[in-house]
Amino acid sequence: MGGADIERLIALLARLPGLGPRSARRAALALLRQPQTRMLPLAQAMEQAARSVRTCSSCGNLDTHDPCGICADLARDRAVVCVVETVGDLWALERACVHRGVYQVLGGTLSALSGTGPDDLNLAPLLARLEEGGVREVILALGATVEGAATAHWLQDRLAAYDVPVSRVGQGVPMGGALDVLDDGTLAAALTARKICS
Amino acid sequence: MGGADIERLIALLARLPGLGPRSARRAALALLRQPQTRMLPLAQAMEQAARSVRTCSSCGNLDTHDPCGICADLARDRAVVCVVETVGDLWALERACVHRGVYQVLGGTLSALSGTGPDDLNLAPLLARLEEGGVREVILALGATVEGAATAHWLQDRLAAYDVPVSRVGQGVPMGGALDVLDDGTLAAALTARKICS
Repeated sequence: MGGADIERLIALLARLPGLGPRSARRAALALLRQPQTRMLPLAQAMEQAARSVRTCSSCGNLDTHDPCGICADLARDRAVVCVVETVGDLWALERACVHRGVYQVLGGTLSALSGTGPDDLNLAPLLARLEEGGVREVILALGATVEGAATAHWLQDRLAAYDVPVSRVGQGVPMGGALDVLDDGTLAAALTARKICS
Repeated sequence: MGGADIERLIALLARLPGLGPRSARRAALALLRQPQTRMLPLAQAMEQAARSVRTCSSCGNLDTHDPCGICADLARDRAVVCVVETVGDLWALERACVHRGVYQVLGGTLSALSGTGPDDLNLAPLLARLEEGGVREVILALGATVEGAATAHWLQDRLAAYDVPVSRVGQGVPMGGALDVLDDGTLAAALTARKICS
């Protein structure tokens, strides 16, 4: 088709999540058609990001600074810590502008299958904050999966010693969701989480 | 979320075909988690390809050499020229290993809508080959679209002067395709292209 360099580019693009061999070829072609205006800027953005990216030693977020922009932001409420599984979850909450506190990124969930135990979770900074005092609430925003629920249970036990309220995000019908397309688990959770309106 | 460098990386990834804002964020996160082992190799592959990619002056293919690997391959039958719209079409035919001749990449189709006229098509190398003589057949492998059909008709007229057989790829039911999911145009083409079996 088009030389080893092009084959190698396609192979590396195909390893990105969301791209398969076919879409990697399309992406490679789009880049190859505009090497100067599209491919080199992307390559340079990658090198720049690879050089500058840091894991925040305080919360586990990815940013070009350590501490990250959220931890360094004096307007954020450091007394409310939201625990999430991944940086992607943190970004999702930030896009929704629904949390004005800070975060703790666990970097995963407890999972016997993948061999992730308590020591593999990035929990030490949160425990240190709790030791220091001044934390008003810990919000567990973990996924509604078996592993997420198990991790939330384990965290509730682990954090009980600190005498700080620990909450979990609500479960139920997603916004815009019709009931007849929801799975049984979501319907059960929604019924259990029902509130009296009047 | 994560600094200007990361925002810029996501914005550039989101411009790739097949990636939207959401999948660009997922791809960026996957790269940011492994800056040394995933992001830098991809960035370097892009820079390398951007530097080395050439448009074949003979057929219009993209390769790291000019003439491209296909045009330079002495085992290919230079007397049979397959005319395609894009480099992607050429690659698709190469993957299928169904054409042992050479190619001519037009770089588009005649289209009043996008203002593509005969002068915008990369046809000169094919005409030069026909002038030289030695071409046994020109195969038009253009898309079964309005523009593809119009371009094929125009090419048939344009090439009539050279006294070389011009063929068009067959149209009909795609392999593995059930008739009841096909559109009316494909069914009509399939019926028109029917062959007597016995």
